[in-house]
Amino acid sequence: MDRSYSSMWDLDTPALVLDLDALEANIAYMANFMAGASASLRPHSKTHKCAQIARRQIAAGAVGITCAKLGEAEALAPVAPDILIANQIVGPTKIGRLVRLRCQTDVMVAVDAAANIDDLSAAAAAAGVTLRLLVEVDIGMGRCGVDTPEQALELARRVHGASGLVFAGLQGYEGHAVMIPEEEARRAAAEKAMAKLTSARRFIEKSGLPVSIVSGGGTGTYKFTGNYPGVDEVQAGSYATMDARYGGIIPEFRPALSVLATVVSKPNDDRVISDAGLKSITPEFGMPVVLQPEGLVTAKLSEEHGTHDGAGAAGLRLGDKILLQPTHGCTTINLHDRYFVVQGERVVDVWPVDARGRSA
Amino acid sequence: MDRSYSSMWDLDTPALVLDLDALEANIAYMANFMAGASASLRPHSKTHKCAQIARRQIAAGAVGITCAKLGEAEALAPVAPDILIANQIVGPTKIGRLVRLRCQTDVMVAVDAAANIDDLSAAAAAAGVTLRLLVEVDIGMGRCGVDTPEQALELARRVHGASGLVFAGLQGYEGHAVMIPEEEARRAAAEKAMAKLTSARRFIEKSGLPVSIVSGGGTGTYKFTGNYPGVDEVQAGSYATMDARYGGIIPEFRPALSVLATVVSKPNDDRVISDAGLKSITPEFGMPVVLQPEGLVTAKLSEEHGTHDGAGAAGLRLGDKILLQPTHGCTTINLHDRYFVVQGERVVDVWPVDARGRSA
Repeated sequence: MDRSYSSMWDLDTPALVLDLDALEANIAYMANFMAGASASLRPHSKTHKCAQIARRQIAAGAVGITCAKLGEAEALAPVAPDILIANQIVGPTKIGRLVRLRCQTDVMVAVDAAANIDDLSAAAAAAGVTLRLLVEVDIGMGRCGVDTPEQALELARRVHGASGLVFAGLQGYEGHAVMIPEEEARRAAAEKAMAKLTSARRFIEKSGLPVSIVSGGGTGTYKFTGNYPGVDEVQAGSYATMDARYGGIIPEFRPALSVLATVVSKPNDDRVISDAGLKSITPEFGMPVVLQPEGLVTAKLSEEHGTHDGAGAAGLRLGDKILLQPTHGCTTINLHDRYFVVQGERVVDVWPVDARGRSA
Repeated sequence: MDRSYSSMWDLDTPALVLDLDALEANIAYMANFMAGASASLRPHSKTHKCAQIARRQIAAGAVGITCAKLGEAEALAPVAPDILIANQIVGPTKIGRLVRLRCQTDVMVAVDAAANIDDLSAAAAAAGVTLRLLVEVDIGMGRCGVDTPEQALELARRVHGASGLVFAGLQGYEGHAVMIPEEEARRAAAEKAMAKLTSARRFIEKSGLPVSIVSGGGTGTYKFTGNYPGVDEVQAGSYATMDARYGGIIPEFRPALSVLATVVSKPNDDRVISDAGLKSITPEFGMPVVLQPEGLVTAKLSEEHGTHDGAGAAGLRLGDKILLQPTHGCTTINLHDRYFVVQGERVVDVWPVDARGRSA
């Protein structure tokens, strides 16, 4: 790192800032909770995309990591000997890459279709490797996954009988539940989803096939899924860095992530324009929250500008820095090449966002 | 490039695809229009962020390029001897970089504050370089820029009297007008904005200060601003690649940009799930349009998934490719490291998105 950056307020902007103490507190809080829970933690790295963070999560007791994409898994394989790609890997190019990655790390993937199982089997057998598969069950999102225990069993049997493959268990993601603001409603939705997932588990086990891993859960529901009978692994990811959206409903984790911006124009006392727009901080879950200064609000994001107003605008001058909290950490981090890691206001390190842009 | 990719349909996905014939037709169409217009073209490269495209635009007659950010200008300087950074460059770190860039290319920047002019002057004089400045006028967006001809003149005089600086003219961006669907309403809004900008020009010229460049205009308004008396340069950018949003109102340009995705799950005959989500194609101006197959519609984007329905879903199988047109090319391109350049269905080149992520 450039040692001339001693204070975060001197960073060139826009800059992605990560509070190390908050990050470590979040990792420790979740590790401590999961140590006392019935399930294990396999944190999702789609949010942070960072080997330095994955390494800390594994050191704190995580059984491995979860990735959304093969490219993410390739980028993080050097620090993760056990990776779940929680999605379908489809087509000859991707399956070829998966089999090559299997030589480097014990990667497992989700499946929800017979033809995909046959393709994975042929490639694994030809390469002389063994791939663990989780059959995905749609537990309420209306996205990927089979619907019924019977369909799950049919795919599980197909995996079990295929060369090069191991039927490792089931996965389901209750993405429709993780953001429900009211805790009891969120718990109810998560438990309903886990009931569907674990009923598929029991159905398969009754047929004589062992189910090693049932994987689900996100940051919004870890408390419920982590102790739900029959759930083995929780995939929570956002808890490590947090964002404003989760901050509103999961207050036990500290905000570790922010984007530092500079006031580049002050047309009048009611409005300042910053250099952080849609290419530095994402809008799909709402406008970024201004952490500093107090009383400033984000009114609008255009491509490379934030428009901010509110009482906090009056005291700002050209060149002043402002600190924004993203409403969606996952997509915001994916816009940046590096984290500026701070303790208090001091920049102590720079970490690459190793899997930035690795959506393929 | 990997020569095994002969057909675009064999590309690993998600992939950013650029139709070379459409791109070149768009560049030629705009060059031809501007050759007969009263203004010159200085195309904005915030959309394409690509040296290969900037080079083609300059070869077709563009007087230089426009950039949104200093980082973009640094990335594209090797192919552009004359760059306008159409934003304020504020603070010692940024100004230091700007002065260093000035040794490489004849870069000019926008200003809207006296203190910023003083900082730029001190740095330019200390480095022994000359910086051209455009005074920005707010012509209706409510973002950066001064409001009145008197304020513009005051800043112009300050620039003119400062060592290391040259007062080069004025800039205004009618961003509030460029997307108005109805052409006559769009023309009226653009002309009202240009009237404000050129009245500031006349006011400054009457005071005895020459105004060399008045710069404005976008893809939605190039026809009006390009022939507006007193406007010298047009900053249109999206016309080269286009997107679905501009496609609806500027039909003379061809869609050159798309994102190729793969069907990774087909839960039922009414719905397919693709591997292109928010990290591959942006949502702020609406859901991506499905170019192929016919009858397929994007219902939802999550982080790494597109959910597609409509009559076109029934005929798709796992592993089939679908082609999506972004609604916002600028932010979508910024998610990708490279363009796969195609002619017809054949991949003929791979171009880096040189300024991807260069928001600082």
